[in-house]
Amino acid sequence: MTDQGNNLDRWYGSYAERTAGLAASEVRALFAVASRPEVVSLAGGMPFVSALPRELVSGAMDRVMQESGPVALQYGSGQGFPRLREHILEVMALEGIRASVDDVVVTTGSQHALELVAKIFLDPGDVVLAEAPSYVTALVVFKSFQAEVDHVETDDLGLVPESLREHIARLKAAGKRIKFLYTVPTFSNPSGVTLSWERRLEVLEIARSNDILVLEDNPYGLLYFDAPPPRAMRSVEEDGVIYLGTFSKTLAPGFRVGWALAPHAIREKLILANEAAVLSPSSFTQMIISEYLSGADWKGQIDTFRGVYRERRDAMLLALSDYLPDLSWTVPNGGFYVWLTLPDNMDSKSMLPRAVKELVAYTPGTAFYANGDGRNKMRLAFCYPTPDFIREGIRRLSTVINGEQELLNTFSQTAPLTTLTAPHNVIVPPANLS
Amino acid sequence: MTDQGNNLDRWYGSYAERTAGLAASEVRALFAVASRPEVVSLAGGMPFVSALPRELVSGAMDRVMQESGPVALQYGSGQGFPRLREHILEVMALEGIRASVDDVVVTTGSQHALELVAKIFLDPGDVVLAEAPSYVTALVVFKSFQAEVDHVETDDLGLVPESLREHIARLKAAGKRIKFLYTVPTFSNPSGVTLSWERRLEVLEIARSNDILVLEDNPYGLLYFDAPPPRAMRSVEEDGVIYLGTFSKTLAPGFRVGWALAPHAIREKLILANEAAVLSPSSFTQMIISEYLSGADWKGQIDTFRGVYRERRDAMLLALSDYLPDLSWTVPNGGFYVWLTLPDNMDSKSMLPRAVKELVAYTPGTAFYANGDGRNKMRLAFCYPTPDFIREGIRRLSTVINGEQELLNTFSQTAPLTTLTAPHNVIVPPANLS
Repeated sequence: MTDQGNNLDRWYGSYAERTAGLAASEVRALFAVASRPEVVSLAGGMPFVSALPRELVSGAMDRVMQESGPVALQYGSGQGFPRLREHILEVMALEGIRASVDDVVVTTGSQHALELVAKIFLDPGDVVLAEAPSYVTALVVFKSFQAEVDHVETDDLGLVPESLREHIARLKAAGKRIKFLYTVPTFSNPSGVTLSWERRLEVLEIARSNDILVLEDNPYGLLYFDAPPPRAMRSVEEDGVIYLGTFSKTLAPGFRVGWALAPHAIREKLILANEAAVLSPSSFTQMIISEYLSGADWKGQIDTFRGVYRERRDAMLLALSDYLPDLSWTVPNGGFYVWLTLPDNMDSKSMLPRAVKELVAYTPGTAFYANGDGRNKMRLAFCYPTPDFIREGIRRLSTVINGEQELLNTFSQTAPLTTLTAPHNVIVPPANLS
Repeated sequence: MTDQGNNLDRWYGSYAERTAGLAASEVRALFAVASRPEVVSLAGGMPFVSALPRELVSGAMDRVMQESGPVALQYGSGQGFPRLREHILEVMALEGIRASVDDVVVTTGSQHALELVAKIFLDPGDVVLAEAPSYVTALVVFKSFQAEVDHVETDDLGLVPESLREHIARLKAAGKRIKFLYTVPTFSNPSGVTLSWERRLEVLEIARSNDILVLEDNPYGLLYFDAPPPRAMRSVEEDGVIYLGTFSKTLAPGFRVGWALAPHAIREKLILANEAAVLSPSSFTQMIISEYLSGADWKGQIDTFRGVYRERRDAMLLALSDYLPDLSWTVPNGGFYVWLTLPDNMDSKSMLPRAVKELVAYTPGTAFYANGDGRNKMRLAFCYPTPDFIREGIRRLSTVINGEQELLNTFSQTAPLTTLTAPHNVIVPPANLS
């Protein structure tokens, strides 16, 4: 961290050990860049909230203040507003989940549910299994509690069960404590990939037989474009899954309302951790959402969001085919993201300043790995810009990538003359054997 | 924790060590009891939000949605909405604080600022110095990060500087790492006591010369009844104080908006910790508060709250004089609480069920100590019930206390016949010498 080595910080020696793990994410710096209006940002995962009719929110707001103002303005319970928890059951039922209202804990966005789960489970040195690649701010949270993240291989059908088995065996043999498997099984952030139904069952079976808890993070599941995705993992397994949901993508993130559905004993601890952290989530925003879900056609609104994001996904896939036909990318059936693979020798992070100069932004692949992988990957978010801007953004990106390719070609031709790198055809042992 | 010993919890062995420190607070159980309408609750510290005109909030809400709906519904920055941070400077200026808008971090209530400060500073075994007694949920937070709380003596002028010096010397001699001094210097929760101006300077000097950070938690400072309290400690010392503020008491807790004002380098880490925990505080509630502070007579509204709480404080003090003239209590010049001292042999916690049976609730003194002290103390909150109910509550309480006294008198007369307790006049060494 920049400041920790700074002698101007009088309290430098006072921080907790875990604070060293609180580095600024690569996405964070990008938010500032991306906010300039001339930049087409394919970086941030901001939902297109303008597709939400303002009067739906205003109407709910007014009814809450008229009918229950003093309750909405007061502290609430650490578990969350009971009526909203009933509504949350209705939302989860759309993904095949049956649960008790008692086992839902409302949190300040599902991000806070992630933080609370990490707080109650992770001691320094514990291991979290996660997809390769994984949601960046989940990695930040796990690191902030001094856990190690072990990335399990994925392909176009999501987590590879055989890889999961191998990682578990290797970690157990090394005496590591695996606390849970963190996964975004549906329309993954950042890859857009969905774990198939057969693999869901297999992953759950592997977790069960190894006594590993599954942390199923599902912000995008209802935003499918074609056929609905497989049912949630929590719909199969009750006692071994903590499920995280949110209203940030199906309604609006500005309310900061999400939830955890957890096995009974874990739920008790989540409530206590939630109370310690914030006393109670906002009564005001919980009640507005509850009122919205009671009165508005919220399923129709989710259909509207699906249509908006489907059109943008289509625009991005078409532009990629038109402008970058030689590269490969994932084809998401929902959610916000496409995962683009660059040529092996390209580094998306070092290329970013040039991209921003060309007025397009993305998130470098390394942000989504705890181990430095993902150098030649990038996440492209199609959720926020309009289809025309997406197309223009991909066009700009293609000039940056093509320019980078020319530069690398030139460099690789001249490099042997100016540097002492080994010729490419010399066989060197892999890093773990050297 | 009840569930940790429960064999029904399949994940019993998986929790982090810190989770053992996440016990339900004594206040928590009381919220359920106190919610029954026939009980006069002097337990919870709920602000009387009905004194806030509904149209002030509704007007701000409507303007925010009309003028900047898409911003209010979107993610914001981890540091908080810039315009609100400017408003927060105006609020803090009322207590003599001058600061830069860059050093304010908006949080999900000031409770979350407490959690974030604890997260970035506390390793297991670290020591937090705190008043005796101290705010219950601060103790819960410190314990949840496996810190030890060392209570410093207080009297009617707040923290006793000589005791603070002694505690620091003793802890340092024992090789303990003191991370900060936590204090509610103005209208303390739970005691209602205010640290005098002279002592503020002395406490700051002791902290400075011992390189101990001061965590000044000030939810009640603007709610004074008579003369304004001494200026905030942060007004004197910039580099050694983290100041916490909130809109929960001067506006409404349902929004969950508070803040930390911190030295530059610490502020950077608080922002990172805030982003990891919640991505950003609610844009929606931040903007409503900002709009309220721009358009409404918020200082006049604070005057209204002062009048409401002054009347209730007066009702409580009069009722105590009338019904419990033999006991002693603090006389707060602001805030929400009176701290009542019972006869030495009385236990407020074991008496509570009888009080609830008599339809009055309070918070037992032990809740406010990390070390089991406070057995014959109780916190009486005058913030929420009307003056008539306060008087009736104290009347009911007096019958409970008087009944308990009779019981104890009977018991102490018969005790020597049935138990083997030592006679009261035998001199025994104090606990720390035995």
